[in-house]
Amino acid sequence: MSLFRLIPDRPDVVQDQNRPDEKGTFREWLYITIFQATTTAGKIFDIGLFILILSNINLLMLESVESLAIQHARLFKTLDTVFLVLFSVEYLLRLYCVRSAKRYAASFYGIIDLLAILPSYMEFFYPQWHVFMIVRSFRLLRIFRIFRMVKFLDESRILMFALIRGFRKIVVFLFFVVLLAIFLGSMMYVVEFPHNPGFRSIPQSIYWAIVTITTVGYGDVAPITAVGKVIASFIMILGYSIIAVPTGIMSASVIQEEKRNRGKRCPHCDAAGHTPGAVYCSHCGEKLKPD
Amino acid sequence: MSLFRLIPDRPDVVQDQNRPDEKGTFREWLYITIFQATTTAGKIFDIGLFILILSNINLLMLESVESLAIQHARLFKTLDTVFLVLFSVEYLLRLYCVRSAKRYAASFYGIIDLLAILPSYMEFFYPQWHVFMIVRSFRLLRIFRIFRMVKFLDESRILMFALIRGFRKIVVFLFFVVLLAIFLGSMMYVVEFPHNPGFRSIPQSIYWAIVTITTVGYGDVAPITAVGKVIASFIMILGYSIIAVPTGIMSASVIQEEKRNRGKRCPHCDAAGHTPGAVYCSHCGEKLKPD
Amino acid sequence: MSLFRLIPDRPDVVQDQNRPDEKGTFREWLYITIFQATTTAGKIFDIGLFILILSNINLLMLESVESLAIQHARLFKTLDTVFLVLFSVEYLLRLYCVRSAKRYAASFYGIIDLLAILPSYMEFFYPQWHVFMIVRSFRLLRIFRIFRMVKFLDESRILMFALIRGFRKIVVFLFFVVLLAIFLGSMMYVVEFPHNPGFRSIPQSIYWAIVTITTVGYGDVAPITAVGKVIASFIMILGYSIIAVPTGIMSASVIQEEKRNRGKRCPHCDAAGHTPGAVYCSHCGEKLKPD
Amino acid sequence: MSLFRLIPDRPDVVQDQNRPDEKGTFREWLYITIFQATTTAGKIFDIGLFILILSNINLLMLESVESLAIQHARLFKTLDTVFLVLFSVEYLLRLYCVRSAKRYAASFYGIIDLLAILPSYMEFFYPQWHVFMIVRSFRLLRIFRIFRMVKFLDESRILMFALIRGFRKIVVFLFFVVLLAIFLGSMMYVVEFPHNPGFRSIPQSIYWAIVTITTVGYGDVAPITAVGKVIASFIMILGYSIIAVPTGIMSASVIQEEKRNRGKRCPHCDAAGHTPGAVYCSHCGEKLKPD
Repeated sequence: MSLFRLIPDRPDVVQDQNRPDEKGTFREWLYITIFQATTTAGKIFDIGLFILILSNINLLMLESVESLAIQHARLFKTLDTVFLVLFSVEYLLRLYCVRSAKRYAASFYGIIDLLAILPSYMEFFYPQWHVFMIVRSFRLLRIFRIFRMVKFLDESRILMFALIRGFRKIVVFLFFVVLLAIFLGSMMYVVEFPHNPGFRSIPQSIYWAIVTITTVGYGDVAPITAVGKVIASFIMILGYSIIAVPTGIMSASVIQEEKRNRGKRCPHCDAAGHTPGAVYCSHCGEKLKPD
Repeated sequence: MSLFRLIPDRPDVVQDQNRPDEKGTFREWLYITIFQATTTAGKIFDIGLFILILSNINLLMLESVESLAIQHARLFKTLDTVFLVLFSVEYLLRLYCVRSAKRYAASFYGIIDLLAILPSYMEFFYPQWHVFMIVRSFRLLRIFRIFRMVKFLDESRILMFALIRGFRKIVVFLFFVVLLAIFLGSMMYVVEFPHNPGFRSIPQSIYWAIVTITTVGYGDVAPITAVGKVIASFIMILGYSIIAVPTGIMSASVIQEEKRNRGKRCPHCDAAGHTPGAVYCSHCGEKLKPD
Repeated sequence: MSLFRLIPDRPDVVQDQNRPDEKGTFREWLYITIFQATTTAGKIFDIGLFILILSNINLLMLESVESLAIQHARLFKTLDTVFLVLFSVEYLLRLYCVRSAKRYAASFYGIIDLLAILPSYMEFFYPQWHVFMIVRSFRLLRIFRIFRMVKFLDESRILMFALIRGFRKIVVFLFFVVLLAIFLGSMMYVVEFPHNPGFRSIPQSIYWAIVTITTVGYGDVAPITAVGKVIASFIMILGYSIIAVPTGIMSASVIQEEKRNRGKRCPHCDAAGHTPGAVYCSHCGEKLKPD
Repeated sequence: MSLFRLIPDRPDVVQDQNRPDEKGTFREWLYITIFQATTTAGKIFDIGLFILILSNINLLMLESVESLAIQHARLFKTLDTVFLVLFSVEYLLRLYCVRSAKRYAASFYGIIDLLAILPSYMEFFYPQWHVFMIVRSFRLLRIFRIFRMVKFLDESRILMFALIRGFRKIVVFLFFVVLLAIFLGSMMYVVEFPHNPGFRSIPQSIYWAIVTITTVGYGDVAPITAVGKVIASFIMILGYSIIAVPTGIMSASVIQEEKRNRGKRCPHCDAAGHTPGAVYCSHCGEKLKPD
């Protein structure tokens, strides 16, 4: 259940524990603005941050298109610096306004916020590392911030629990699929090796087997011999059938998770399953919304 | 729930509100013929319209085949004009026979009917726009009209509600898939970029990641390096597993929707779930069909 | 419900109605041997027929491999004649031993048995039709005969009813998929047409859209332009999501069909759902097997 | 139900029947160390074996990469010998410490352990058989040994029973899919044969049909003619729909298997379904764990 720690299922409650003690100060106002979305300033901040993050990701993508990178080299450099400054200021403000800077820095979002700016600084001091500019794609992780703003929270919670519930069964299943791919790949290696350069080694044949079992089917490697085609047909039909297994697992998971989530939900501690007439939450004792 | 407005779930009832007040006039007869399928004339009109729409779509397709377009240029032009006249007359008749022309013009089907003829007129006045003749494919939307005629209504209603019920969860899921594609695409860019022209930029690599995760697998871009193939294998197996998630969501949706739809259905307001012995609809009070 | 007629769900009962009246004659013995598998002779006949049908199908396949067809032309011709004679004799025997030859000839299996020999005779009288020898593949249908022999009957019945139950919903769904393919194909035609010979007409683009939505992804046609790739990515993710719909429908169907099939089954009329302690069938009144 | 014999569902219990009678001897200590994971020595042995098996499989793969095989020929030969000696010693120890060597040699794991070393000995005595070195991939089967160590046992049991429960239905379904592929492949042969070298024979066309129905779609064979493309589109949409069938079957299987597995599980005979308050196992009478 270590997964539960990483992904705070009640982010607002958890983060409020890091709210500064002093009431009415600028620091507290900053905390509410940056970490919450209850005030107008907070909402503006959130939307602005959302736009910044998306722009930054788009910039990162465009920069990788060589023709654009050469043509607008200076523009990209300037924009990179602007984003670096903005995200750095944001990070420092976050460190400043929380009660315990250390606690924030070590939290899930704190680490992501740091990872978003660190690579650019490293590139600044060691320009020869420019080639590793790709690590800046860690910024993509900032997109998790956006989740706080969307109304999809209920849906993603059901999905997440369904995934956790079905996780171990799917791992066992994938383990079998990989074993199968190794076995079938080796078999095809024996059959196709003398005739087909695409099956020149077992790892390569296993790659082909995975491409086939998962029904991706690039076609960069394909059987040539008659025996190979018969085995390939068998593998395809097998892959076609066993895709049903994880699906069946997930269906069962989602159906059970939905059953568990039916009923009234507590606005405070978010526990579900209260019967229609319930007045108090059975978990935290707080009052539920009237029917 | 804005989706419910766009797609009228009880089209006959909704449209009857636009029936002209005068009884027994030609205008009312026209309304019944065009908008309903209860009389013989109405059924003939519906079937004729159905054939016209399908013919028009086929014409549109054949026109795009260059060899045919050149060979039968005049024939195509003539047929285009014929269909334009027919659909225009139909649109005017519809505008004439409803109680409020404005109301029909602003309705779901009203807009579709207009979109089906508008582009041809614009091409007529601005011949240089011929290249945009493709906007005429809006006519395809007219196919929605056909739904009124089929007996599949019950099935499509269950499907639609199941979709609406599972919609938000699937959107959350797709959001994760896109994020995953961006992340994995960037990773493959770093690995394959120096060796493979197919991964020449991050957007291109993301395109490849989507082709792979969704198990489409064109093969126009495929990993070359050993590390790339290992990562690709991992991505495929991942894609293979997560396809189970939307399926599980939909299974749960359909099962619940079917449960909700069991029981007698009201012939008037279409509410379901009445117990076998029920005599009156629990929603509109009208009499149900005897068991 | 016309489907129920074509596929006899209780083949033994139905065919027994065609059993000749005379008891103990050669004709009755022949009927039991050919149409049933209760006697030793009947079982030998069934297994022999099974081997003959499979051999014939294999022959048909090998004949289509040109190198073999030229090399062993005479052998193939001889074998063809042998199979034709055997199947003809079998057909005549079947016609002879049933009570009403007409009734058998018009039945599901009667038509299949005729289709298996007719093409060869037509080729015999019109040799120039040899090119249409493929119609002989109708013989494949004879494989349905084999179903009587397998013990999988219960499973195929549940599958069939689940298919029938989900059939209309899946048809509605496929209708939407085809509409979607037409619409998205037309869109891609506009975008890719000037740059990509693979999208040279709307029908060709629709073909591509179907290849993509169904996640087959041959790669013989693939988008080239940046806009095309973005749209293609969108189509893939869409196809990836909507594959969940028929799956959800089928899951719900199979689950319900299995629920309906639980409980004791009548050995006579094959009705299911009897409670454990039941003694007589609730449908035909015959005695059930003791628990 | 012969499947149950091959895969022991309670491996520890079954194997303990082969435990030597003498208590406290070296032979018994060896048995506990090798066959069980309850003592520290046993755990160390298991982890060591796990690492050995994985290393051996990796060695096998690397050996098949020609460039590596030539460069490090001597290293590979030495490592092969080392692994052969280690696995041989392990096999002999297993034979020695069990009560009945014959019983172990004939058991599921006994056969696998033998298959893992036999091919190397045969290659040793008949060097010209080196080309068949691939049979050494039987060693992969040793990976089954690892299952004893993982905690995923519960999950794999549910999966296995769900597979067994859905097995016959899926076989019936696959039989239909193969029939369909033969039929559609023959059809495409007639249509594409004169224009497309990819459809040069019926078996080749059936191969294409399977590639298409299973949505693998290599693209090494693709229709060229207009009619062929229309039929191919139909086949794709069909394959897209029928993939729902095995999935529906598996979903139903998993859901039912999970229902059956709810409740307390007996630590002794592993029977599930005991109600929360149960004190004794309803199958073997042993005491259950307190709630």
